[in-house]
Amino acid sequence: MDYFSESIKKAIRTVPDWPKPGVAFRDITTVLQDRTAFRKLIDAFVHRYHGQHIDAVAAVDARGFIIGSALAYELNAGLVLVRKKGKLPFDTLVEDYELEYGTASVELHKDAFRPGDKVVLVDDLIATGGTMLAASRLIRHIGAEIVEVAAMIDLPDLGGSARLREEGLQVYTVCSFEGE
Amino acid sequence: MDYFSESIKKAIRTVPDWPKPGVAFRDITTVLQDRTAFRKLIDAFVHRYHGQHIDAVAAVDARGFIIGSALAYELNAGLVLVRKKGKLPFDTLVEDYELEYGTASVELHKDAFRPGDKVVLVDDLIATGGTMLAASRLIRHIGAEIVEVAAMIDLPDLGGSARLREEGLQVYTVCSFEGE
Repeated sequence: MDYFSESIKKAIRTVPDWPKPGVAFRDITTVLQDRTAFRKLIDAFVHRYHGQHIDAVAAVDARGFIIGSALAYELNAGLVLVRKKGKLPFDTLVEDYELEYGTASVELHKDAFRPGDKVVLVDDLIATGGTMLAASRLIRHIGAEIVEVAAMIDLPDLGGSARLREEGLQVYTVCSFEGE
Repeated sequence: MDYFSESIKKAIRTVPDWPKPGVAFRDITTVLQDRTAFRKLIDAFVHRYHGQHIDAVAAVDARGFIIGSALAYELNAGLVLVRKKGKLPFDTLVEDYELEYGTASVELHKDAFRPGDKVVLVDDLIATGGTMLAASRLIRHIGAEIVEVAAMIDLPDLGGSARLREEGLQVYTVCSFEGE
């Protein structure tokens, strides 16, 4: 692990049996509310994309907004919201994806990007990768180019980051919880 | 209106009859996805609080995260999430507030602040002020001090900013839609 990964992983609080028994929830609020850890978290992403041409950061509702906003500001890029269904007021595209039980949807404004825009897609965590995959389909459908899919935490045991790579997406995560 | 207000207000898209007939929805996504407007939006807040001692920015779920994150990063402050009920995994405080029909709740981790922390509370918009008032009660209950309640948009016709001031809170908004 590099400098950023180690200190950020240490600042994540693991809450046992939440939201249900047997699940170890990775709580990022302890990173955010610690000004030093929060700065390092955002800097991990800024360092990765600084100097590349990034037109927009696409951020997944709602915790993705946290990383996406500060990153877009630092990169002097636009910020595009990928929202849960029913939250965006203008003309949208919708993409469904599967959950453990049932389905969910993400939605994107059709005018969110210009064709050829270079985009980093961010969320807080990659678990099964369903949300990120659905979001990436919407972004590509509009004609923008995904430079990378990025998250703070990877849970590789759930297979999401591997699944995204199989779809031809480049994936970056700051830290990872594997077999823990 | 000052330099920031005017250009940001122009970049807001008004969507008629959304989410229901008769409502003129102020869509901020057009500000966010325009890198110049987005930068000015965040800079409006950064200029206001730069040089003051701010320990943390408290951001309201979910669009408040957008302003809150970039602002906290720029101020080198912590970021605290005020979330909708059921989203925070650790020990929380809950505060209910009234909606047009029914009630809603906001939730805050009990360990989100240290006593005496100086806090800016942010959201995208102040309408009736119910969410901001509930959030400010939670923050004060933990013993932190609210320096100011801040939002991108004020809808003064709905009385929220006046109500917050009556509660002894200082209020800042970047722009305002009144009688429109």
